[in-house]
Amino acid sequence: MTKTNPGNFFEDFTVGQVIEHATPRTVTEGDRALYGALYPTRFAIPSSATFAASVGLEPHPVEELIGFHIAFGKTVPDVSLNAVANLGYAECRFHRPIHPGDTLRTRSEVIGLKENSNGKTGVVYVRSTCTDAAGATVIDWCRWVMVNKRNLDAPTPDPVVPQLASAVAAADLIIPEGLDFTAYDESAGGEPHRWDDYEVGEKIDHVDGVTLTDAEHMLATRLWQNTAKVHFNTEARPDGQRLIYGGHIISMARALSFNGLANAQLIAAINGGAHTAPAFAGDTVYAWSEVLDKAETSVPSVGALRLRLVATKGRDESMTLRGDDGKYAAGVLLDLDLWALCPR
Amino acid sequence: MTKTNPGNFFEDFTVGQVIEHATPRTVTEGDRALYGALYPTRFAIPSSATFAASVGLEPHPVEELIGFHIAFGKTVPDVSLNAVANLGYAECRFHRPIHPGDTLRTRSEVIGLKENSNGKTGVVYVRSTCTDAAGATVIDWCRWVMVNKRNLDAPTPDPVVPQLASAVAAADLIIPEGLDFTAYDESAGGEPHRWDDYEVGEKIDHVDGVTLTDAEHMLATRLWQNTAKVHFNTEARPDGQRLIYGGHIISMARALSFNGLANAQLIAAINGGAHTAPAFAGDTVYAWSEVLDKAETSVPSVGALRLRLVATKGRDESMTLRGDDGKYAAGVLLDLDLWALCPR
Amino acid sequence: MTKTNPGNFFEDFTVGQVIEHATPRTVTEGDRALYGALYPTRFAIPSSATFAASVGLEPHPVEELIGFHIAFGKTVPDVSLNAVANLGYAECRFHRPIHPGDTLRTRSEVIGLKENSNGKTGVVYVRSTCTDAAGATVIDWCRWVMVNKRNLDAPTPDPVVPQLASAVAAADLIIPEGLDFTAYDESAGGEPHRWDDYEVGEKIDHVDGVTLTDAEHMLATRLWQNTAKVHFNTEARPDGQRLIYGGHIISMARALSFNGLANAQLIAAINGGAHTAPAFAGDTVYAWSEVLDKAETSVPSVGALRLRLVATKGRDESMTLRGDDGKYAAGVLLDLDLWALCPR
Repeated sequence: MTKTNPGNFFEDFTVGQVIEHATPRTVTEGDRALYGALYPTRFAIPSSATFAASVGLEPHPVEELIGFHIAFGKTVPDVSLNAVANLGYAECRFHRPIHPGDTLRTRSEVIGLKENSNGKTGVVYVRSTCTDAAGATVIDWCRWVMVNKRNLDAPTPDPVVPQLASAVAAADLIIPEGLDFTAYDESAGGEPHRWDDYEVGEKIDHVDGVTLTDAEHMLATRLWQNTAKVHFNTEARPDGQRLIYGGHIISMARALSFNGLANAQLIAAINGGAHTAPAFAGDTVYAWSEVLDKAETSVPSVGALRLRLVATKGRDESMTLRGDDGKYAAGVLLDLDLWALCPR
Repeated sequence: MTKTNPGNFFEDFTVGQVIEHATPRTVTEGDRALYGALYPTRFAIPSSATFAASVGLEPHPVEELIGFHIAFGKTVPDVSLNAVANLGYAECRFHRPIHPGDTLRTRSEVIGLKENSNGKTGVVYVRSTCTDAAGATVIDWCRWVMVNKRNLDAPTPDPVVPQLASAVAAADLIIPEGLDFTAYDESAGGEPHRWDDYEVGEKIDHVDGVTLTDAEHMLATRLWQNTAKVHFNTEARPDGQRLIYGGHIISMARALSFNGLANAQLIAAINGGAHTAPAFAGDTVYAWSEVLDKAETSVPSVGALRLRLVATKGRDESMTLRGDDGKYAAGVLLDLDLWALCPR
Repeated sequence: MTKTNPGNFFEDFTVGQVIEHATPRTVTEGDRALYGALYPTRFAIPSSATFAASVGLEPHPVEELIGFHIAFGKTVPDVSLNAVANLGYAECRFHRPIHPGDTLRTRSEVIGLKENSNGKTGVVYVRSTCTDAAGATVIDWCRWVMVNKRNLDAPTPDPVVPQLASAVAAADLIIPEGLDFTAYDESAGGEPHRWDDYEVGEKIDHVDGVTLTDAEHMLATRLWQNTAKVHFNTEARPDGQRLIYGGHIISMARALSFNGLANAQLIAAINGGAHTAPAFAGDTVYAWSEVLDKAETSVPSVGALRLRLVATKGRDESMTLRGDDGKYAAGVLLDLDLWALCPR
């Protein structure tokens, strides 16, 4: 009997199956520092304990994406080790801020299965839930991945395709307990623009670019205990390149979006996302955003902005998402749809 | 109206103007660890809480340069985003040790302006002050930068050139409260040489060299939230190289100086400094020091050494600062003038 | 008198000599985070404070190898700065778990000397002891290195070659106080295999590989304050390559061994080790293990596995240690012999 983990193949999943993922992980101040070294983030809440306390957040939260990457990484050995492609995300909500000292675990429930017509692969849908040491939900989200079959003769399961919301409803956004932007300090925040200053349809070119290196994306991806071998091993792909973890591009784009969205302080939800092209060391990543929607929240000082956050290889000042053919424009790496919380 | 930060151009500055820089930043133990991973530092005070306590410093301070880089980084988006060159530093004093938990902010006052005769650029002089959460000064310093004009027809301001001290007077050095080297442990410190063992005019070749990589200097520069795009983006310069943040060279040279100056434990002031040539990945950095001056301090066990710290590309055992033409010798990257505190 | 450290040469050592190494070093949560960024480790105890507490370990320990690398690094400036080769380790025991807040020092006693017949070098044997702030032993180990003579005419000392155990006896393993695997959570640990599931002679191919970069091994080696110049300086070797610190390969192999040995949670001892070939950036490191021995311990729920941990350049599914000629097989980088603690 082999003792190493071969990962699950398509026929290993059944609808309703619950997988407890390994290796609970305690968040530390070291994660905050490394995140700041890896991404050019300057959002005032995760940067400053004093600022966070001034808007009602104590203890000092880390970036939501630290939590997301840790929670996501745990699912890789069980869900996507034999994946061909990460197809999408939906219904991701952040239930509370994450602090150093929190210990995060993740479990996933299989909520859908659909074999592809080629008989070689299938799509697996999971809802994953990240919990704290007390068992309370910290983050939950759905994703679907295309996974290889081990045995091409394995029977085809009845297709189950879950209905997933195209976006988290504004009314379902969870505002962190105590959050109050009434006394918001714009000079500390970095920009004067508030919720009222953004209009639906507005696009923002975030200007700055970062050229990627192999050492940095490997440091990041390991930090989240993500084990997908294509990120680390030049012998794992025919081209000898290390494929960069899609979450690295998400964090890079989010950090770059500070320039123009400095006050979009907190991510409350991720409505959907697609990694539309691979990224490699040497690529220079830029970002632009589009305001998709706006909503009031249960807290009068807190507004929600629904944003499309797009990462591109090379700067596209035209901010073109798709070509005339409806396909993603050349250079688009990431198309992410999220809700951010912003002072009104 | 664009929402992104275009930075200030020469004509945007006025003498007396005060700029509150964005993004307060809380120092953490993660910063200490990353600093130790990025630079070969072995000074006993920032390395060991026990050693620090034995010389009267509790809680455990981090390297002064962590504070300097954080404080400096905050000024970049407002002061030097459109800078052509960082011309110099003066009158930098460290007012107290910096600890994990400190939240640092910086504000700058414009103290001088002088348009260049070409009409395209001008020199901006600022005095920057980094404060803690209670508003007390932690570090202050002056620097002057050459900044582009946006509009070449903008009127020329009356020239104001501040008188800056060529060095902080020894009597103005601030000795950290409680610092006492009476029971100094040389074997822990790493070398037997004390203040009395150094002579004015003495030069020390610090022997060791470090070859720079892009991943490392970008990690460092991001950690300080420095946004100057030339450090991160190969598309920002015609040569496709990433220019290394001058502060990275300062920290590298300071760390290398341990070998010969292990007991020059604390930096009390930076009298001046010039980044005399650019550095790039692949360069191997060495350092040498010259003792410029010595002074007693208000604490009998604590002496001050005024040191010229020189970083070079390639080792220069001759320790030549300038050629016969008075210009910096080839290979000199940094000429820094500082006061360090040392056991007597 | 030169103020820089030339290191010790063979004739500077005498049997019985005790060297107090410089720079005590406080472990922090930043070290834990960096270790997790540098190596693909997922062992549940160092990853999760909650898991650690559930097996009786509070406060939250870091990986034993963090302690080993820190303790080892301190010896380099005094013991191996002029070493030609690191020949071996023996009798390394971890006396207690290491936590953030611990301040580590190391001292070494010279326990053997043997000049080589060429008259140019000799072997120095040291027993090094790492202690905490209270002076209690945390780790101790022996190593022997081949060191250059400064003066070829220096007299040849009487040869003293210490008798070192080929392995730490199982009865001498120190079980961390409070450790109890009775309520061990396998789903958190990552694999179902326990002590009873491993058989002496069994080999495990750990499957995964990591391609090395210069930035990462330098970050690691600096973090441990290891000053050997060949790791950092492309001008220090004729081939212009940076030789990777052997401890980087140890940590990489240990982390890779999670896949198949996830429950070999703690390293109790290192019986011996050899760095059998140099490693450089671009090499892809894999690992395999062989179960050499098994033993019960003083704690009924805790078993000990004696493991040979082998790192290779390129994957060797045949898991061949030596060729027919008795020499290490091509591609073997590390042959490490250790005792690990595992739930029964």
